[in-house]
Amino acid sequence: MISNKLPKMFYGGDYNPEQYDQATHIEDLRMFKLAGIDIATINVFSWALNQPDEDTYNFEWLDQLIDSLYNNGVHVCLATSTAAHPAWMATKYPDVLRVDTDGHKRKFGGRHNSCPNSPTYRKYSERIALKLAERYKDHPAILVWHVSNEYGGECYCDNCAAGFRVWLKEKYGTLDNLNRAWNANFWGHTFYDWEEIVPPTNLSEHWGNNNSTFQGISLDYSRFNSDGILDCYRLEYDAIKSVIPDSVITTNLMGFFKPLDYFKWAKYMDIISWDSYPGLDTPVSFTAMAHDLMRGLKDGQPFMLMEQTPSQQNWQAYNSLKRPGVMRLWSYQAVAHGADTIMFFQMRRSAGACEKYHGAVIEHVGHENTRVFREVAEVGRELQLLGDKTLDSVTESRVGILFDWENWWAVEKSSGPTIALNYVDQVHKYYAALFRRNISTDIISVDSDFSKYDVVIAPVLYMVKPGVAKKLEDFVQAGGTFLTTFFSGIVNENDLVTLGGYPGELRKMLGIWVEEIDALFPDKHNKIVLKNKLGDLQGEYNCGLLCDLLHSEGAEVLAEYAQDFYQGMPVLTRNKFGKGEAWYLASDPDDAFVDDLLKSICDSKGILPLLETPAGVEVSRRSKNGQDYLFVMNHNANEEVFDLGQLQACDLLTETDLNGSVQIAGRGVQILELK
Amino acid sequence: MISNKLPKMFYGGDYNPEQYDQATHIEDLRMFKLAGIDIATINVFSWALNQPDEDTYNFEWLDQLIDSLYNNGVHVCLATSTAAHPAWMATKYPDVLRVDTDGHKRKFGGRHNSCPNSPTYRKYSERIALKLAERYKDHPAILVWHVSNEYGGECYCDNCAAGFRVWLKEKYGTLDNLNRAWNANFWGHTFYDWEEIVPPTNLSEHWGNNNSTFQGISLDYSRFNSDGILDCYRLEYDAIKSVIPDSVITTNLMGFFKPLDYFKWAKYMDIISWDSYPGLDTPVSFTAMAHDLMRGLKDGQPFMLMEQTPSQQNWQAYNSLKRPGVMRLWSYQAVAHGADTIMFFQMRRSAGACEKYHGAVIEHVGHENTRVFREVAEVGRELQLLGDKTLDSVTESRVGILFDWENWWAVEKSSGPTIALNYVDQVHKYYAALFRRNISTDIISVDSDFSKYDVVIAPVLYMVKPGVAKKLEDFVQAGGTFLTTFFSGIVNENDLVTLGGYPGELRKMLGIWVEEIDALFPDKHNKIVLKNKLGDLQGEYNCGLLCDLLHSEGAEVLAEYAQDFYQGMPVLTRNKFGKGEAWYLASDPDDAFVDDLLKSICDSKGILPLLETPAGVEVSRRSKNGQDYLFVMNHNANEEVFDLGQLQACDLLTETDLNGSVQIAGRGVQILELK
Amino acid sequence: MISNKLPKMFYGGDYNPEQYDQATHIEDLRMFKLAGIDIATINVFSWALNQPDEDTYNFEWLDQLIDSLYNNGVHVCLATSTAAHPAWMATKYPDVLRVDTDGHKRKFGGRHNSCPNSPTYRKYSERIALKLAERYKDHPAILVWHVSNEYGGECYCDNCAAGFRVWLKEKYGTLDNLNRAWNANFWGHTFYDWEEIVPPTNLSEHWGNNNSTFQGISLDYSRFNSDGILDCYRLEYDAIKSVIPDSVITTNLMGFFKPLDYFKWAKYMDIISWDSYPGLDTPVSFTAMAHDLMRGLKDGQPFMLMEQTPSQQNWQAYNSLKRPGVMRLWSYQAVAHGADTIMFFQMRRSAGACEKYHGAVIEHVGHENTRVFREVAEVGRELQLLGDKTLDSVTESRVGILFDWENWWAVEKSSGPTIALNYVDQVHKYYAALFRRNISTDIISVDSDFSKYDVVIAPVLYMVKPGVAKKLEDFVQAGGTFLTTFFSGIVNENDLVTLGGYPGELRKMLGIWVEEIDALFPDKHNKIVLKNKLGDLQGEYNCGLLCDLLHSEGAEVLAEYAQDFYQGMPVLTRNKFGKGEAWYLASDPDDAFVDDLLKSICDSKGILPLLETPAGVEVSRRSKNGQDYLFVMNHNANEEVFDLGQLQACDLLTETDLNGSVQIAGRGVQILELK
Repeated sequence: MISNKLPKMFYGGDYNPEQYDQATHIEDLRMFKLAGIDIATINVFSWALNQPDEDTYNFEWLDQLIDSLYNNGVHVCLATSTAAHPAWMATKYPDVLRVDTDGHKRKFGGRHNSCPNSPTYRKYSERIALKLAERYKDHPAILVWHVSNEYGGECYCDNCAAGFRVWLKEKYGTLDNLNRAWNANFWGHTFYDWEEIVPPTNLSEHWGNNNSTFQGISLDYSRFNSDGILDCYRLEYDAIKSVIPDSVITTNLMGFFKPLDYFKWAKYMDIISWDSYPGLDTPVSFTAMAHDLMRGLKDGQPFMLMEQTPSQQNWQAYNSLKRPGVMRLWSYQAVAHGADTIMFFQMRRSAGACEKYHGAVIEHVGHENTRVFREVAEVGRELQLLGDKTLDSVTESRVGILFDWENWWAVEKSSGPTIALNYVDQVHKYYAALFRRNISTDIISVDSDFSKYDVVIAPVLYMVKPGVAKKLEDFVQAGGTFLTTFFSGIVNENDLVTLGGYPGELRKMLGIWVEEIDALFPDKHNKIVLKNKLGDLQGEYNCGLLCDLLHSEGAEVLAEYAQDFYQGMPVLTRNKFGKGEAWYLASDPDDAFVDDLLKSICDSKGILPLLETPAGVEVSRRSKNGQDYLFVMNHNANEEVFDLGQLQACDLLTETDLNGSVQIAGRGVQILELK
Repeated sequence: MISNKLPKMFYGGDYNPEQYDQATHIEDLRMFKLAGIDIATINVFSWALNQPDEDTYNFEWLDQLIDSLYNNGVHVCLATSTAAHPAWMATKYPDVLRVDTDGHKRKFGGRHNSCPNSPTYRKYSERIALKLAERYKDHPAILVWHVSNEYGGECYCDNCAAGFRVWLKEKYGTLDNLNRAWNANFWGHTFYDWEEIVPPTNLSEHWGNNNSTFQGISLDYSRFNSDGILDCYRLEYDAIKSVIPDSVITTNLMGFFKPLDYFKWAKYMDIISWDSYPGLDTPVSFTAMAHDLMRGLKDGQPFMLMEQTPSQQNWQAYNSLKRPGVMRLWSYQAVAHGADTIMFFQMRRSAGACEKYHGAVIEHVGHENTRVFREVAEVGRELQLLGDKTLDSVTESRVGILFDWENWWAVEKSSGPTIALNYVDQVHKYYAALFRRNISTDIISVDSDFSKYDVVIAPVLYMVKPGVAKKLEDFVQAGGTFLTTFFSGIVNENDLVTLGGYPGELRKMLGIWVEEIDALFPDKHNKIVLKNKLGDLQGEYNCGLLCDLLHSEGAEVLAEYAQDFYQGMPVLTRNKFGKGEAWYLASDPDDAFVDDLLKSICDSKGILPLLETPAGVEVSRRSKNGQDYLFVMNHNANEEVFDLGQLQACDLLTETDLNGSVQIAGRGVQILELK
Repeated sequence: MISNKLPKMFYGGDYNPEQYDQATHIEDLRMFKLAGIDIATINVFSWALNQPDEDTYNFEWLDQLIDSLYNNGVHVCLATSTAAHPAWMATKYPDVLRVDTDGHKRKFGGRHNSCPNSPTYRKYSERIALKLAERYKDHPAILVWHVSNEYGGECYCDNCAAGFRVWLKEKYGTLDNLNRAWNANFWGHTFYDWEEIVPPTNLSEHWGNNNSTFQGISLDYSRFNSDGILDCYRLEYDAIKSVIPDSVITTNLMGFFKPLDYFKWAKYMDIISWDSYPGLDTPVSFTAMAHDLMRGLKDGQPFMLMEQTPSQQNWQAYNSLKRPGVMRLWSYQAVAHGADTIMFFQMRRSAGACEKYHGAVIEHVGHENTRVFREVAEVGRELQLLGDKTLDSVTESRVGILFDWENWWAVEKSSGPTIALNYVDQVHKYYAALFRRNISTDIISVDSDFSKYDVVIAPVLYMVKPGVAKKLEDFVQAGGTFLTTFFSGIVNENDLVTLGGYPGELRKMLGIWVEEIDALFPDKHNKIVLKNKLGDLQGEYNCGLLCDLLHSEGAEVLAEYAQDFYQGMPVLTRNKFGKGEAWYLASDPDDAFVDDLLKSICDSKGILPLLETPAGVEVSRRSKNGQDYLFVMNHNANEEVFDLGQLQACDLLTETDLNGSVQIAGRGVQILELK
């Protein structure tokens, strides 16, 4: 929790004055005041500045910068600068350089470029974190510690290979266990010595973008890689904590970022922070889901919006401007879903190199008379007004959607049945239906406490890890409603099929047996036909992608396929199990079906929308000390109207009382304090 | 010939019980009986199991497996296990690892992964084949020996480079000869020392998928590579034969598989076997053509269908299920075209690794109550019924289509005139037209005896190898009808243009001179206009891709171009030559033209359909001891009707007499014993 | 100037008799006479022939060839043969082999394959040029020296890395300067030692086709690479000049070829020559623009058309034949735009290797009775007729379009705002509008004398190099009209943004401030609405790609955006500046807008079409000693008619007087000598 640090939401962002001169810095400080900026993330990429050679450290510039900021009312989110190693280090200690999947040893360049298993990188990144902690442990400016930056990537060097073998020994103990877990008798892969195991790369088991001929080793390497990078984070984390036990430490995550299992990472973070870079064509429901994932990482704890662009990005194919009001709208969307800060990348645009066409609070023109700056300053003004009203408030949801990184890896490394299966898109499909109805949803992990929810949805729960089936059964038996879909219950945590009939460990609870799985060509569809009207569900819907051919083993058949040789086989089933229900959807339906299905399920559980609003008007809720705050966000460009019904509210941004029929401007935001 | 081994078609497939426990094996045996399974291919990928280190061999598990199978009525197709080297071998002897076209040394992983010129691989693959032969030479279970598996791929390591130079010295004798054959003065490629020659790769002459800047070396490397892998096969073959002279030895081929010149390979195989994996969108005529190619490899000798999936594949983009009846239909299609076995990959699905979503006779559920198993068992029952009726029967064709691997390589390595020219598609275009009319066709090589045929078709005979033009002239002079197409007669066996006017060595026989070759953009077309009605040929047809601009030098001009600046130039010619006719088609026509052209030609030679059937109903014939068997196969999903005319027949699968108008179910098969 | 060498345009092309025997050569000579061929480019790829080992040179074959040609009336363009190193050199001195962007050391193969910083390559290429000069310095056959061939490509080996560091030291003097110029504090790139700098490759800063994470180093490497290859050229050039001071030396360029800054190269060439290979779908205006670029390299001096295909290419995807008349038409198009030679690749087709399907004057059939040969001979006849009439004539233009290689590199290395921005296409858009009106245009560099022009157009002048803004201001102040477009004035020569407001150094002259730059998705558009009719400009037009959001700071607003949140903001402005006008176009318009805009501007300056002709009929002018020659070229397949008005002319190709309404055949050419 960082809310004890400032009595309002932090407002600011990445700041790299080392690219400019002192006069520019003075001008920046002037403008920060105009915009209500009170936090700056600094030192993100300054390792080479801080440590010009192996033995020399030079923090004087940083001392001055921190003092200067603090003396001007700007607090500091202090990065440890280890997100790009210095060029001298690459020259002197090539072990810091990564080896790519084609076996190429990289050379100095780019960023986020260090091998996570490099002894040199580990030694010097830990050391500089320690030195920074020692130097600034008592500085009142420092609010948050920011370890490295946007961790990611992979390395396949010999140090990684050696580390992988150690990791495997710890996991499996014996080669017999490993050979069994990987089904190593397949294609003659039996290992007799740990040294025979090499990382899976394009030179061994991989090809193309995401294909493996041997999923067991690939899955374990994904785990090892996530863990190894986490180790690097933890070295720095522990170094800082050893000096400042009560420091608040984070690293900036990236939403649905495949390489790192953030649920595992979150255990080692004091607060979650993340960088939100939707494209102009990203569905707003997807951004909302990403925020909810970040909130879910620490079981609902508020998070930091560490980065967003005030205007445009530079690395998309087409970097359109955020339309007027959109930066503000998306900032409050983050808050609505749990953010307790609004921060930008970055405060002033670079004059040179890769990100000079990325938006910034202070543009190249250098003054405050820009649309972008005015919009930033307006939000700054509002945040002063809001004060700590919503700070530390929480989001209560009765629906949880299960998301699991290892399942993601496994589903998409699978060779067959279809390349078109995208796990995150499947999760989003169900999230978006709830989003459209303004039903609050948590994104949860297999380790979450399911009993907090009335409904748990687990799209494509392909991998059922130890204990999860039992947890789900307990949840349903106690009265919960569970929904899962095709290609679920197939494998265990090692990607070994659970024999005896799909959906494996979920079969009993679901009361079905899936005999076959048909993959449809992209232009092919089948139909879902309801046997009887079921809430809003009735008539026919389209489905495709995969079609499970299943038999009921006790489950009620609610809908059937209407076409192909499996016409008449069940496609939607519901099984009474204990006090609850377990639903199975055997194919990938159109959105209309998901809307009607989830409305039926939610209605039956008495889960209602926060508000009924026109399409494109999102409502999200945060609560604190018994007080509810409804964030109403109009994602449409035109004004919309909705009805508060019996509710009485005050819009905190305009300090206006509202009731009955309420107008909201195009791209407008209202924060309704309910009375 | 393997027909003396069992009094019926072998029925079974790949079986990998080493991935399971003994209890599962016992259950497998029970189910094999239910399905009429009598052959299992084993030991395909067990090298690492068989040889845990350089000096130790361990075949006890194999002893037990073979005995267990044999004692339960299942014979053995014994693989030599060399399709994937053990991991220890890669660690200890890296020369077994391939180097790819980008110069990357591979690491252990995948399968079919050994350098064909690796001394280590050659030594140990030969040795294990010998050991297996010695151990099982007297075992009555062994019906067929299966060397390695699905040979293929390329390597460009230093051992290959050295081997290539030896191969070149043997071929050319002197560098002068080589420089001349490769036109090495082009782009300053003159070689003065054999050591200067490096394999053609992406680091020297190649780029992209199939492009070369120096076709001579690339063509020779394709030959060297095919020969080098064949050497590996032959080492194992000879080792087995040295112990068991009367053994039946094969390796499983892959139809139109570009890297290996199977006509050359077939000389060293006792029986052809192959793995048939059409996609659901592969034309059935293409599958038929592939079977006919396999039958043609040994001049019509029946072959083994070594692998097919009973239900679905796992490595396609979209792995749809085979619809009910399709596995049976395609199994009999193989038999109809010359297969004397029906075998599957595989008997029981893997629980882990790459192929776990590939179909199997025994699915993950593990019992016999599945659609797939029932269909397999039904075919098993029918095969008992059929007994040896069709075994060893042959296919008689009056039409041969020439196919040549070296021509394939050369056509598609050509830089210009168009990237859209696909040799196999061209061959298929003519095959398909005959297929649609139920006219039996052989796929033949340049070494085949043409005199067996009335009509020989050679689409895109770009490369005319020594003696081939003379053979074709002899064929035509003796009364044969020969048809070839655009871009033919261009080069000799070294891809050197035959100077003096296209189509080079074929010019005299064809009575034409091709002055220029125009390449059309994909959206461009020309028209073929018949000068006079010619059988079914009349009016206009579309053509495209390439348009030869040709002049008659005695040939009769039957059709002309209708568009562009070469409007009025000949596009179809016929030249009387001796007692026969040589036809030339100067462009790539639509299917309607090919249908009408081949009908005209066949009609004129009295070559008639086996039966007249509706579209989608295929008829193929096998004959034995004067008895004809017509295989009628309905590839449509709905029932069709055809007329037997004067024929009287008995459907062997239903033991029903048929005459007159006959109904055949959707995806149905009838094997008509003609009376 | 080469016009003193022959009293007519040279006519001939590349000739490689070393691929054939002597009898063929004799036959070639016979046919050369038939076609009026009087020049042959020889020895292009014969290094391996000339120098069979390190110490031996063998020019006897070349002696004989040159004599034989000369004795038969064919002069020589003598290449130095260094475009492909001998295989023995690659074996003995691997430093001649390049290293690619993925770090792969190449092996012998292809052509244009030598590392430009290889000591071995530099030593031996210089030496052979010297030896050739010494041997043939007095031979009367030699008209032109042709250094190497089609220079290009990149290398990233250690020799290049070392050379790059030397180049950087010379440019920047100190690392401080370099760090500042590259904004090296970005992403921690601060360099403390020159040895820390590595070439930018896919292993350091690059990825994909044209992407960099650090533009400063990438831009400098492009310069270094262009300079380094130029050094290789200059070594040979100087060697020849040291022996034959009055020799005419060239190397064949390739039009808009990105890797080499030809404006810099041109300073070291006695005459420009280039290879023109438009596809059949290349706009004829693009070919014209490329010719004008080549003419512009040496400020309007005539150039050599060194290569074109007489019929078809071999390396395009679809190598269509040039239609009848097209070779002639395009040959004269080259002349119309400044060529003083017409030359082909090549005289006789290769029988083998990569280019055997590339067209040639003498086809594989080997005789003169081909369409292609007849067309070549017809042009040969016409050239005799033309004599020296147009030789050394010049092209006078009142409009100049600025083109800059470094701007090209910088624009397309930019990360953001859009990947869709193609600099050459932008330049062509404005060129094509003038082309459609038959308005003569020069392609000029930033070093050109602008005062020669009434109108200077600089599309996307992203990079403003030192002194250029001042030059443009001087031009406008003196009465010139300047037009530039969106994304201009952004950076200095190091790709560092000019701070204080776009368009930076151009802001004062243009009288505007660009606040933001919006990037549109490909399917999105905005509208340009004229405030008042302005010449032909009126009403609405489409625009897209990028939209600058700008404010007038004194400029007259002529048109506004009609859509989106910047509706009503200026999109076209005109600023009076001194005696002239500076126009700014803030978005990428449709062609209709460019047509109307440039017509308005040209009309206002009294710049009128050479002739009014139907669409597809091009008119270009060359002048000599006060005599104008109009080249009228009908690019349509059908006949067209145009009106000469008051003009009286003689068509030199038919020696016919023309006036009033004139017919020109489809693909016809007329060279009008005006009276």
